[in-house]
Amino acid sequence: MVTIQDVAKEAGVSAATVSRVLNNNHSVSIKTREKVKKVIKDLNYQPNLLGRNLRRMETRMVLVFLYNISNPFYSKIVEGMETIAHKNGYNVLMCNTNAKIETEQIYLNFIKNKLVDGIIFTSPAMRHKALSELAKDYPIVLCNEYERNTQAPVVTIDNEEAGYDAVNHLIRLGHKKIALIGSCQVRSGYERELGYRKALKEVGIEINESYIIRDVGSYKGGIIGVKKLLALKEKPTALFCISDLIAIGAIKQLKKNKLRVPEDIAVIGFDNNRIANMYDPSLTTIAQPRYDIGKKAMELMIKRIKGNLTSNPIIKLQHELIIRDSTLPIMQ
Amino acid sequence: MVTIQDVAKEAGVSAATVSRVLNNNHSVSIKTREKVKKVIKDLNYQPNLLGRNLRRMETRMVLVFLYNISNPFYSKIVEGMETIAHKNGYNVLMCNTNAKIETEQIYLNFIKNKLVDGIIFTSPAMRHKALSELAKDYPIVLCNEYERNTQAPVVTIDNEEAGYDAVNHLIRLGHKKIALIGSCQVRSGYERELGYRKALKEVGIEINESYIIRDVGSYKGGIIGVKKLLALKEKPTALFCISDLIAIGAIKQLKKNKLRVPEDIAVIGFDNNRIANMYDPSLTTIAQPRYDIGKKAMELMIKRIKGNLTSNPIIKLQHELIIRDSTLPIMQ
Repeated sequence: MVTIQDVAKEAGVSAATVSRVLNNNHSVSIKTREKVKKVIKDLNYQPNLLGRNLRRMETRMVLVFLYNISNPFYSKIVEGMETIAHKNGYNVLMCNTNAKIETEQIYLNFIKNKLVDGIIFTSPAMRHKALSELAKDYPIVLCNEYERNTQAPVVTIDNEEAGYDAVNHLIRLGHKKIALIGSCQVRSGYERELGYRKALKEVGIEINESYIIRDVGSYKGGIIGVKKLLALKEKPTALFCISDLIAIGAIKQLKKNKLRVPEDIAVIGFDNNRIANMYDPSLTTIAQPRYDIGKKAMELMIKRIKGNLTSNPIIKLQHELIIRDSTLPIMQ
Repeated sequence: MVTIQDVAKEAGVSAATVSRVLNNNHSVSIKTREKVKKVIKDLNYQPNLLGRNLRRMETRMVLVFLYNISNPFYSKIVEGMETIAHKNGYNVLMCNTNAKIETEQIYLNFIKNKLVDGIIFTSPAMRHKALSELAKDYPIVLCNEYERNTQAPVVTIDNEEAGYDAVNHLIRLGHKKIALIGSCQVRSGYERELGYRKALKEVGIEINESYIIRDVGSYKGGIIGVKKLLALKEKPTALFCISDLIAIGAIKQLKKNKLRVPEDIAVIGFDNNRIANMYDPSLTTIAQPRYDIGKKAMELMIKRIKGNLTSNPIIKLQHELIIRDSTLPIMQ
C-alpha cells in the first residue's frame, strides 16, 4: 500500500507538505501543489480514511469542540453554525472536550484523518502556539475564547466593553457598592473585569478588591460568591456575575439569606442564555449575539475550507444590554 | 479501483452481505463471512472511507443523535455515555437531528461509510420499520424513546409507572383537581398520561378531559397550558407537567397571574434536569436516571459492536420521585 511517505519521497517534499496539499492549505506554492497532486495520482495514493477522489477532497462535515453541552451557552451558537452549514451543504458534528488537552488530542484525529473538513474551537485548552501550528495545516476557527497571539480566525465580542456596559447599568441605577463574581484567567473573564474596573474608575468609585470574587464558575460559583460577599462587613448592593448560571446561583443563595432580588440586591448576568428569561426574577444580562457568532464562525470556516480566507481576522460582534427584572434603581 | 460490487460478484453474494461482513454483523454465516473476507483480501478492496486494515475494522467512535443540545435533558445522558465509552477506549460524537428524518439520513452516512462504529438514537424520527432494518446492518441502540415493534436494544424507564408516581404524590398531598400538561403521541408522553389516568382512577377521581393539555412542549408549552387551564371554570389545584421545562413555563405563567406555587397551585415536573434544582421554587420532579441510562446505552452499544449482543433487550431503569419546594399539601 502506498503511504504518504512514498508520495513525499517521490515528490521531493516532506510528508507535512503532502498533508498540506491534501488539506487545500494555500501556504504551499502552486507549483509544489501541482507536483504533489500529480504524484498522488501517479502512485494511486489513497489518503488514510479518505474515500474520495482528489478532485473533491472534502467530507462536508465540520466538527465543533464544545466545553460541555451541559452549558446552555452553546445551543444557540451551534444553531447559528448549523444554519450556515446547511445552506452551504455542510453538516455539523459536536464533541465535549471539557477543555482538556488530552480529549482535544483524541478528537483532533478527525481532522488529521480527514474525516471532517474543519474544526471550530469554542473553548480551547490548547495554548496559542499549538493552535497556531494546527491552523497552518487545517481549517481551524476560534469562537468566543482566544489568546492574543493565536494565528487563526476568531469570532467573539468585545468583552471589556460588555463588562463596562453591565457595570455602567448598575451605576446608573444608583449603585456604588458593586461586586463582581466569576472573574478569572480566561481571556473573556479577565476582560470583563477590566470593563468592571473601567466603569467604576470613570465615576470615581474606588475599587474594593474584596468585592471581586475570582475563579468561581457556574451555578455553584454563584452560591459560593454570595456566601463570601455576605460575610463582608460592608455588603454590596449590586452584583455583576460574568455568566447567567453564576447569576442564578447567586440569586438562589440571596433568597436563602432572605434578601430580595432586585429590591435588596440587584443582579446582572452575562450571556442571555435561554434560562435568563425563564428564571424568576427574569435576569438582566448582557446578550452575546450567540446565533450570529455561530453563523459568522461557520462562514469563516467554509471560506477557509475553500481556500478563500488567507488572513486571520478577529471579528467582534455587538453585544446588547437586556434589562429585565433582576435590576432596579437602588432604594435608599 | 475495486468496488464493493466487485467483491460481491467475486464472492457470489450481494453487496449488502459484503457490507454486513464489513460491519461485523453476525447475521451472516461464518462460512460466508470467511469467504467474503478472503475476496476482500485477494482483491485488496479498500472499503470507502475506511483506512484501516481488516484485522481491526473499527473507528472507536460512537455517534449520538440528539433532538437538540438546547434541551438540558441530554447533558447527563451524554456524560454517562462518555464515561463508559472512555473506559473502553471509545469516544462520543453528537449531532442535532431535531427529530427530522432528512437530517437523520445525512448523519446516517457516518455509519454507512464506517466513520463511526455505531449510532445511539435518543429521539428518533425514523419509524420502527426503518430503524429495525438499520439495526440489522449496523450497531444501533435506542435511548429513552422507542416504538413497541422496534428490533433494536432499548434503554429507558417505565414511563407509565413514573407518571403514576408523580400523580400519586399529588393525590397523597390532598389534591383532587389535577391537570396534565404536555401529553402527546410520543410513546413516553402517551405512557405518562396512562400513568396519570391510572393513579386518578385508582382513588375514584373522575378524569376531567379538559384538564389534559396535549401537544404543547417545552417552556412555551407550560405557558400555553396554564393559560388554557386558568380559563376553565373549575381550576385545577395541581399540575403534572411531563417535563421540567414545561413545569417552569407553567410556574412562570402562574406567577404572572398572581398565583403562588406551591401555596395556590402545586406543580410537579419530569426529568430532574439541572434547572429543576436551580429554579425558584425548586421543582418537585420525577428523576430519570439519566447518567445511568447513558451508561447502560453505551454498554449495550459496545457489546453490539463487538458482536456480544445478539438479542434486543428493552431495559427499564428505575425512576425516582424527588420532592422539593413546588408541591405542598393542599390548603383548604
